[in-house]
Amino acid sequence: MGMELPSYADVVAAQARIAPHVHRTPVLTSRMMDEQAGASLFFKCETLQKAGAFKARGAANAVFGLSEAQAARGVATHSSGNHGTCLAYAAGRRGIPCTVVMPRTAPQAKKDAVRGYGGRVVECEPSTTSREAVFAGVLAETGAEFVHPYNDKRVIAGQGTCSLELIEQAPDLDAVIAPIGGGGMVSGTCLALSQAAPRVRIYAAEPEQADDAARSFRAGHIIADDAPVTVADGLKVPLKALTWHFVSRHVTDILTVSEAEIIAAMLLIWKRLKIIAEPSSAVPLAAVLKNPALFAGQRVGIILTGSNVDLDRLPWQQGA
Amino acid sequence: MGMELPSYADVVAAQARIAPHVHRTPVLTSRMMDEQAGASLFFKCETLQKAGAFKARGAANAVFGLSEAQAARGVATHSSGNHGTCLAYAAGRRGIPCTVVMPRTAPQAKKDAVRGYGGRVVECEPSTTSREAVFAGVLAETGAEFVHPYNDKRVIAGQGTCSLELIEQAPDLDAVIAPIGGGGMVSGTCLALSQAAPRVRIYAAEPEQADDAARSFRAGHIIADDAPVTVADGLKVPLKALTWHFVSRHVTDILTVSEAEIIAAMLLIWKRLKIIAEPSSAVPLAAVLKNPALFAGQRVGIILTGSNVDLDRLPWQQGA
Repeated sequence: MGMELPSYADVVAAQARIAPHVHRTPVLTSRMMDEQAGASLFFKCETLQKAGAFKARGAANAVFGLSEAQAARGVATHSSGNHGTCLAYAAGRRGIPCTVVMPRTAPQAKKDAVRGYGGRVVECEPSTTSREAVFAGVLAETGAEFVHPYNDKRVIAGQGTCSLELIEQAPDLDAVIAPIGGGGMVSGTCLALSQAAPRVRIYAAEPEQADDAARSFRAGHIIADDAPVTVADGLKVPLKALTWHFVSRHVTDILTVSEAEIIAAMLLIWKRLKIIAEPSSAVPLAAVLKNPALFAGQRVGIILTGSNVDLDRLPWQQGA
Repeated sequence: MGMELPSYADVVAAQARIAPHVHRTPVLTSRMMDEQAGASLFFKCETLQKAGAFKARGAANAVFGLSEAQAARGVATHSSGNHGTCLAYAAGRRGIPCTVVMPRTAPQAKKDAVRGYGGRVVECEPSTTSREAVFAGVLAETGAEFVHPYNDKRVIAGQGTCSLELIEQAPDLDAVIAPIGGGGMVSGTCLALSQAAPRVRIYAAEPEQADDAARSFRAGHIIADDAPVTVADGLKVPLKALTWHFVSRHVTDILTVSEAEIIAAMLLIWKRLKIIAEPSSAVPLAAVLKNPALFAGQRVGIILTGSNVDLDRLPWQQGA
């Protein structure tokens, strides 16, 4: 199919390229959480990453890998989530234009975040047709480089740097688990660890109400759902060709959890780790607590992916 | 007056003694926060400390410095705040008894936290007379070692380890600022930095509505208020002889802030640093933002002291 895959060398190169622009995020532990899980948990806090999400890694790798000529025309993407904010952040660091196409119905806070980093928001109607038309217009008008939220080799290589740090900070892990939406973080983890720590089992965790990746994994081909509804709003998007490549080859299993389990795990992270995590970040912990036999007595890395949450509307206060 | 002061050597000894029992907490930075403050801010995250507060340091130093004979009789304190929880944590680590006397009106969560670490809660009436009588009874009954929340040389030396870490993690600071209640953290900071980094100016920050330390500082002697009311509930207690010694000699100034300024700074910490901080932790940031001329262009260490907050009752949702 002529698909160009990122390599392990791309991850290593990304690590050097993005180092000045992203945090080496801390790994937190909690004895009480370990007792509850019956395992030793190592929480990689991408919640504390620049712009509040691991996606700063992939975005920075894409932006800082551009030639001067490409960079002058800027970057563009469509995203109403963390990727748009993180791409604006990275573009701002390089001082190049960034356009993010977003439905006009997207939360004001997301639009403000893109603009806060100097990005331009172009609104479309909340439909795929409108988004594609508006986005094509943006590319034609600007000549900007499209940086897809996850189906992009530069982005996947950038996300892979997270797990390279994790295995240095928490040696001898038995397993790593990350949430799965489009699969960018999980693919980066597969790419990095299949070379650097092939003994580590890789799990993905997904909301039951947006379980397209789990069903894809069992079916052996990509299944995409139409507009799933879950509190973990970063995980609604489907796998694509590049991420399917890694997920289908390197993931041990995809575990699913209910909405109530996600919210309970989110509250546990806030209470025990004392950090702010968005619902998507809590999905792996929920999966670990739901499947104690899989992880009993093991050293498990849990990637907390982001912290962009509305502090005036917390799910345990709203009944989700 | 025969008061036995802790020495710098006590801080260095504390660092080795408590290392297995406390976190070396991370220092976080935020470019957006720096822009807002007009200074380079380095946030020392004792919010991520064991048991959720810097007081784990002083408590661990006291508990692990006890002889076997003393340790067998356990430790005791009176506290409805973080010190009680942290003393129970440290005693639990050593496997010795811990009794915390607390008003029966104290929040259930505080009692649960002490018990969660294996401590015993003994309730008193919410008056000084009752507390003193009940506490005397506990000491007589158990022979436990009294570990005062701050007027204790072991506790002050333990708190000083925080600033020793901070100046390693954020070199060449111009100033350090910490909240002041009884003055344990500020005294430890004075003790550590007056020797290890004497060029660093030390500020304390206090709620206007509980400004007894600021008034003491200007008057030249300890002033204690009766039952001040502030959202920063860790900062209601007065200075005592040991902490007055350090505060009066080494602090550059004590800055005060309003309740609204505290809550706004707390929300800013949650939004920008993506960590959970209790109101007391936000008082120094509020003071830095209120006094830009004092810190313009400088490198400022801000000690975030604790993260024990009721997630169902956030001050910006309640109008405090």
